[in-house]
Amino acid sequence: MPDVMSETVEKRIDKLEKQLKQLQNQRKDQLSMVIFSNNMDKILAALVIAVGAAAMDTEVKMFFTFWAVSALRDKKKKTKGKDVKSRMLGAMLPHGIGQLKLSKMNMGGLGKDMIKGIMKQKNITSPEEMLATAGELGVQIDICEMSMDLMGFKKEEMIDYPDLGYCGVATFLADAGESSIQLFIS
Amino acid sequence: MPDVMSETVEKRIDKLEKQLKQLQNQRKDQLSMVIFSNNMDKILAALVIAVGAAAMDTEVKMFFTFWAVSALRDKKKKTKGKDVKSRMLGAMLPHGIGQLKLSKMNMGGLGKDMIKGIMKQKNITSPEEMLATAGELGVQIDICEMSMDLMGFKKEEMIDYPDLGYCGVATFLADAGESSIQLFIS
Amino acid sequence: MPDVMSETVEKRIDKLEKQLKQLQNQRKDQLSMVIFSNNMDKILAALVIAVGAAAMDTEVKMFFTFWAVSALRDKKKKTKGKDVKSRMLGAMLPHGIGQLKLSKMNMGGLGKDMIKGIMKQKNITSPEEMLATAGELGVQIDICEMSMDLMGFKKEEMIDYPDLGYCGVATFLADAGESSIQLFIS
Repeated sequence: MPDVMSETVEKRIDKLEKQLKQLQNQRKDQLSMVIFSNNMDKILAALVIAVGAAAMDTEVKMFFTFWAVSALRDKKKKTKGKDVKSRMLGAMLPHGIGQLKLSKMNMGGLGKDMIKGIMKQKNITSPEEMLATAGELGVQIDICEMSMDLMGFKKEEMIDYPDLGYCGVATFLADAGESSIQLFIS
Repeated sequence: MPDVMSETVEKRIDKLEKQLKQLQNQRKDQLSMVIFSNNMDKILAALVIAVGAAAMDTEVKMFFTFWAVSALRDKKKKTKGKDVKSRMLGAMLPHGIGQLKLSKMNMGGLGKDMIKGIMKQKNITSPEEMLATAGELGVQIDICEMSMDLMGFKKEEMIDYPDLGYCGVATFLADAGESSIQLFIS
Repeated sequence: MPDVMSETVEKRIDKLEKQLKQLQNQRKDQLSMVIFSNNMDKILAALVIAVGAAAMDTEVKMFFTFWAVSALRDKKKKTKGKDVKSRMLGAMLPHGIGQLKLSKMNMGGLGKDMIKGIMKQKNITSPEEMLATAGELGVQIDICEMSMDLMGFKKEEMIDYPDLGYCGVATFLADAGESSIQLFIS
């Protein structure tokens, strides 16, 4: 019975094609990163990886959470109507990417100035420029809503960035689950 | 010779189906996390991710190693028969998730109390409650045996947790290798 | 028309086999790790994972970047012709894996000595021995070229290691994208 057999073959191939499609979607050419730290060196590393991947046409999604959210504040933007604790916390945390400290050898800013000086001298892109490049290359930045709430940050004090969004952990997990690379920068 | 041809087709489909199955098993809907740090903020982030994933029916496996193991001690449980070094190390490390410090701005506990106060005020689940929820949702916690040995911890001083196990790096690697998401929280 | 049908079947199977091959290559039995920290405890954890994976015949690639590069310096090797800033930075950073500090409880070296003493007493392999074992098991170590430049390090001051290379972020991303496990040790 060649007909029956062919039919079975067709059905098995149909199923294979469908499952293969699912597998391909589960592992997109996509990089998902959680950025947890607000240290200058770690944010720089994350941005170097993000920009490198975007330059290779990989889809890049950065999920900024906890301390890292303070790196995305715009120091020129002011907010009103915060409660006391949020104002205190806001004052203690860095106002944007230009005010971050090193995770090691910061030495009251001396170590950071030294590293920044060396980067300038050697024509290594600064974190500020790297962030702008990331935006130009289409790197998507999502800010953790729970962290915004916890830190008492408001959307109007965040930087202008081409592809800036706000989401929860479920969105990060859905993205990461189909990414070929996932990293947690703590 | 249609028969021979059909046979070849069958064989090729058999092989495809087998390989596809292997690929699917290599990338389960599973999250593997190494928890290395014992900082309150990092353990909290790990638990938020774990609980979020478990709520989406993703299998979650947390591998607690090095400093992080101290976060799983039960401060009400006492142990006997430790040598001097193990007693010293045990006394210096936090006794469970309630005694963890912040990785930044801890300020002798002031910063931690502030963050904890804000979390309470904003109805954000505490690390202690988050850990209980993780247990209810079936998040599996494995403790690194080498770290237990190094820190001089004993199983009888660890918390009561529904799905608590002890294993080595080989088990973590085997699990991580077939997980769709892997993260290292350092 | 059984012939036409068979031909279609053949073509669909051809396509399936090709796509499956691509998917398999996208997820090799391979572990990619970024090592960012130069803390003794974190480097040790990275090496335990690397050696464990290599022992299970998993291909292992470690990408040392930023602070971590200082852990690969050979303290017996001297360099000449460095500028002032590079000499200063070089003097402030650890000279190799034997001089690393703990990320926590270092206490001016006391905590580190205590941990090292316990490791010796319990026959846990030291970071130095672990690195040698990694080399023997074929673990590949790549050093980030941008970090070499930034830190002012020279190739002649790096350790002798069987499979030591220098590369940029693009190479790491290409490797990580086809690895079944990727971790960032920060």
